[in-house]
Amino acid sequence: MKIAFIGLGNMGGPMALNLKKAGHEVRGFDLSKPACDKLAAEGLNIATSAAGAIAGAEVVISMLPASQHVEALYLGSAGLMEQIPAGTLVIDSSTIAAATSRKVAEAGAKRGVAVIDAPVSGGTGGAIAGTLTFMVGGAEADLERARPVLEKMGANIFHAGAAGAGQTAKICNNMLLGILMIGTSEAIALGVANGLDPKVLSEIMRRSSGGNWALEKYNPLPGVMETAPASKGYAGGFGTDLMLKDLGLAQENAAAVRAATPLGGLARNLYAAHSLAGHGALDFSSVIKLVQARAA
Amino acid sequence: MKIAFIGLGNMGGPMALNLKKAGHEVRGFDLSKPACDKLAAEGLNIATSAAGAIAGAEVVISMLPASQHVEALYLGSAGLMEQIPAGTLVIDSSTIAAATSRKVAEAGAKRGVAVIDAPVSGGTGGAIAGTLTFMVGGAEADLERARPVLEKMGANIFHAGAAGAGQTAKICNNMLLGILMIGTSEAIALGVANGLDPKVLSEIMRRSSGGNWALEKYNPLPGVMETAPASKGYAGGFGTDLMLKDLGLAQENAAAVRAATPLGGLARNLYAAHSLAGHGALDFSSVIKLVQARAA
Amino acid sequence: MKIAFIGLGNMGGPMALNLKKAGHEVRGFDLSKPACDKLAAEGLNIATSAAGAIAGAEVVISMLPASQHVEALYLGSAGLMEQIPAGTLVIDSSTIAAATSRKVAEAGAKRGVAVIDAPVSGGTGGAIAGTLTFMVGGAEADLERARPVLEKMGANIFHAGAAGAGQTAKICNNMLLGILMIGTSEAIALGVANGLDPKVLSEIMRRSSGGNWALEKYNPLPGVMETAPASKGYAGGFGTDLMLKDLGLAQENAAAVRAATPLGGLARNLYAAHSLAGHGALDFSSVIKLVQARAA
Amino acid sequence: MKIAFIGLGNMGGPMALNLKKAGHEVRGFDLSKPACDKLAAEGLNIATSAAGAIAGAEVVISMLPASQHVEALYLGSAGLMEQIPAGTLVIDSSTIAAATSRKVAEAGAKRGVAVIDAPVSGGTGGAIAGTLTFMVGGAEADLERARPVLEKMGANIFHAGAAGAGQTAKICNNMLLGILMIGTSEAIALGVANGLDPKVLSEIMRRSSGGNWALEKYNPLPGVMETAPASKGYAGGFGTDLMLKDLGLAQENAAAVRAATPLGGLARNLYAAHSLAGHGALDFSSVIKLVQARAA
Repeated sequence: MKIAFIGLGNMGGPMALNLKKAGHEVRGFDLSKPACDKLAAEGLNIATSAAGAIAGAEVVISMLPASQHVEALYLGSAGLMEQIPAGTLVIDSSTIAAATSRKVAEAGAKRGVAVIDAPVSGGTGGAIAGTLTFMVGGAEADLERARPVLEKMGANIFHAGAAGAGQTAKICNNMLLGILMIGTSEAIALGVANGLDPKVLSEIMRRSSGGNWALEKYNPLPGVMETAPASKGYAGGFGTDLMLKDLGLAQENAAAVRAATPLGGLARNLYAAHSLAGHGALDFSSVIKLVQARAA
Repeated sequence: MKIAFIGLGNMGGPMALNLKKAGHEVRGFDLSKPACDKLAAEGLNIATSAAGAIAGAEVVISMLPASQHVEALYLGSAGLMEQIPAGTLVIDSSTIAAATSRKVAEAGAKRGVAVIDAPVSGGTGGAIAGTLTFMVGGAEADLERARPVLEKMGANIFHAGAAGAGQTAKICNNMLLGILMIGTSEAIALGVANGLDPKVLSEIMRRSSGGNWALEKYNPLPGVMETAPASKGYAGGFGTDLMLKDLGLAQENAAAVRAATPLGGLARNLYAAHSLAGHGALDFSSVIKLVQARAA
Repeated sequence: MKIAFIGLGNMGGPMALNLKKAGHEVRGFDLSKPACDKLAAEGLNIATSAAGAIAGAEVVISMLPASQHVEALYLGSAGLMEQIPAGTLVIDSSTIAAATSRKVAEAGAKRGVAVIDAPVSGGTGGAIAGTLTFMVGGAEADLERARPVLEKMGANIFHAGAAGAGQTAKICNNMLLGILMIGTSEAIALGVANGLDPKVLSEIMRRSSGGNWALEKYNPLPGVMETAPASKGYAGGFGTDLMLKDLGLAQENAAAVRAATPLGGLARNLYAAHSLAGHGALDFSSVIKLVQARAA
Repeated sequence: MKIAFIGLGNMGGPMALNLKKAGHEVRGFDLSKPACDKLAAEGLNIATSAAGAIAGAEVVISMLPASQHVEALYLGSAGLMEQIPAGTLVIDSSTIAAATSRKVAEAGAKRGVAVIDAPVSGGTGGAIAGTLTFMVGGAEADLERARPVLEKMGANIFHAGAAGAGQTAKICNNMLLGILMIGTSEAIALGVANGLDPKVLSEIMRRSSGGNWALEKYNPLPGVMETAPASKGYAGGFGTDLMLKDLGLAQENAAAVRAATPLGGLARNLYAAHSLAGHGALDFSSVIKLVQARAA
């Protein structure tokens, strides 16, 4: 299949390569020259513009940092949507505002272009390994068309609902994850301050009603779980500033629909304080530092 | 084995009956006459005083509402600890301050009485079914002595550490549970406000990084999970006011050790607001009402 | 002076009338026909379109509900900014995102139109009485040009800084106000729950380090202060949903500049919960209900 | 008047000296030998025990760190209350749990000893200058008896209600103060992150509905207010760990009466995080560091 892939960063790059490896004819593009060069060196076919990348493509995939980049790519007078032929399938895997996803989908519908929003979780590790989770918003039939492509990049594909629902599902999930991680950090820190062994306490809570993904896969305290970022100096994983961005999207969405998310709002602001303290580039589980004793 | 059981309420009553069913010789007592009468009617041997209950007992078990009741029972000039013979094993299953558990253990140690704190989770359902989880603080050897007795009342027994550690493990776990439940409620309510199907969203998060015990066993939205209290009018389960008490103990403990638990503190105060709104007797998962649209 | 006034709602209507009363030649417009009719009945000259209102005006004032309305009015291909002659002064008194204010100011600068953002506080009471507070962003000279006009509508005029700074000052102030009101409510409710007389406690805190505007002018408990909305069934004043909007803008801004505002974020979500409970139309000081005992 | 003064620390020491300066016959005592020596060097008459200090005293004043110290001093089998003659007036100025104050008052009532709780605000500066604020719980008549003595140490005397009410008023006020300071810090930091001048913004909010004691007397940003601790490296003033203690008492009280204080609870936990970061000894207004950008 002929696939255009726009956005070749830490996530988009390996995703595009996985599609190539699976036998698809992929043409990529990124506004960053170094990103293009890096992928070219790894064998990816690179176009000289976004418009060049989509020429002849049956499927267009985009993986961009924020709402404004997606709007700039597809919409407006110079937007790509004017040039994409009817019948093409657009898969936007960027994590952006649900409202923007709906705008792009509506613009596509007017032109006969099928659009699904398909943000991912799983981080750069999942992008490289091809084990991402896709949360998809859009028509069932369009998801089915996309499935063979998505399966080459991910291990789990969820249909969340209509256009924008993929974005909503992702921010709901990540808001909950952001809460779980701080809550788990607090519980462990409280136990440690009382003299408990963090491994013992973590295991008790994991097997009790406190059980959650953080205790299962991603313990925030160094030394409890060898494979977790905490035990590797909080390197790799999912950065604090990325979590902060997602929690900001969740609050923006909550404001738009007048939802109440007291813990979600607090979590956003605690990650912000953690980032202001200089930890924005560390894995988000480093937020446990906020509730641990340390020197001034 | 001859067992004294002090405190025959909604938890203690069925626990005592399970021990009797298992063939132990149990003598019970409660300051509430109706509680004693109810258990007598179910065949339990009732003493006329706490002192009467412990006469000749090899094991003394207590299940009381709060720290002051445990202090009043065991300590002080008229306390039971003065009358319990050396060599007896005391199992206190009340959920109380870790500091109080340590005081009782120290008083026991002076008299040659082994004391373990063994608070439970699992609610009245677990008490009746004999599937409680015990979180135990005290010496390993004393826990081994208690194990055959505990196994008649519970399905899981965790050794959390030295005296008081059972209490600490329990409040850490329940603080985390209190956070998980509100966080899960917020995420579902945010999704629903955006038009998502709560069953679909719950399933996506359950299988993603938002996964936690509430999504697994105890979904807070009516209709998502048939067996959950939410689908039964929030009847039964674990009452809001009980969760409120545990979260209050967690904050008291955090103040004592100067720990920082921002989400735990907020969770306590949100359950308090929910209780003030008249929902204290409902299952704690009803806290989702706080973030759902409803009439004034 | 010839003044165009766009937006004749609860705030804009009385503001326009005050300008007329002061002798200015005011032509108004609102997309809502009933709003226009109401003001016409009160003697205001009404134009048939926004473009009609600005014809010949030296000063254009707008008072609209949200960022998208201001963008739609001034910007875009059909925007008013294309038609406003160079030399005109635009005063936007809407409370909107600072980023939008800056966009409008930049569009004006390109055309030689001076633009200041001048959001207000003081509510409908202040609008009618002409005692509003203006927080102004823009060039000092432009503010001086606007001052004689602003003085007919308000009692206090603050220069906060460059374009957008009026908006920022307003959301900073209102975020703080939102926090003060909940904090004051909590302190009073805690005292009352301990048996203290709320009048005595309020007076002690007012004269001590807890002193703040809410205790001074706007006590949230009915009966403490006769003139406060609390003593009038929380009617009038500044509605919960308006506070909710401002706190949403503050969180949106915090996300944009990566600021940490834990109490501000929590306050937004508590007003949201209060609104979801059906109290959105009551004065924002009714948020004390959230921390008071009441029937289910 | 013959006055016994128990507790000669940073607060009690200067308070006792002010009474001596006013012509009273003061005998002091402290469990710390260095504290006694220091006050002796300043001319205070020092007793060799608490019992020695009260011999012959008409008024007994105590200024101790926490509930357990007050309980140990007055109550129990070896407590001072057994030795204080009927007719004596006891003024406890310690900041402790209201429940403990009530216990001491009840013990006094049984023996014909009048007891008032009279915690202070104003810090060591106020103690030295004799300008403290007293918040008094107890009978009106007993406060009148105490007034001439209190007036030598303080500038404001408030009668909050019956026994324990002084403590409650103080924690309500200090909980509110703790909230005001963080809220004010957030608002200023948000403005600064948007490019506003903190002096201009502070002045705007001080004169608007965000006005509060922190903006009036105690701006948390260095350089805004020359006399504030912020402009002196956060030295002196009211330490973070003292604020943390008071907010812990407020949460303990809230748990006891089932009150909901979401901002108060969050404030406690944010000061705790600030203290864990190594800032416990700095003035509490240094909490602004938590929301300011800084290096890791």
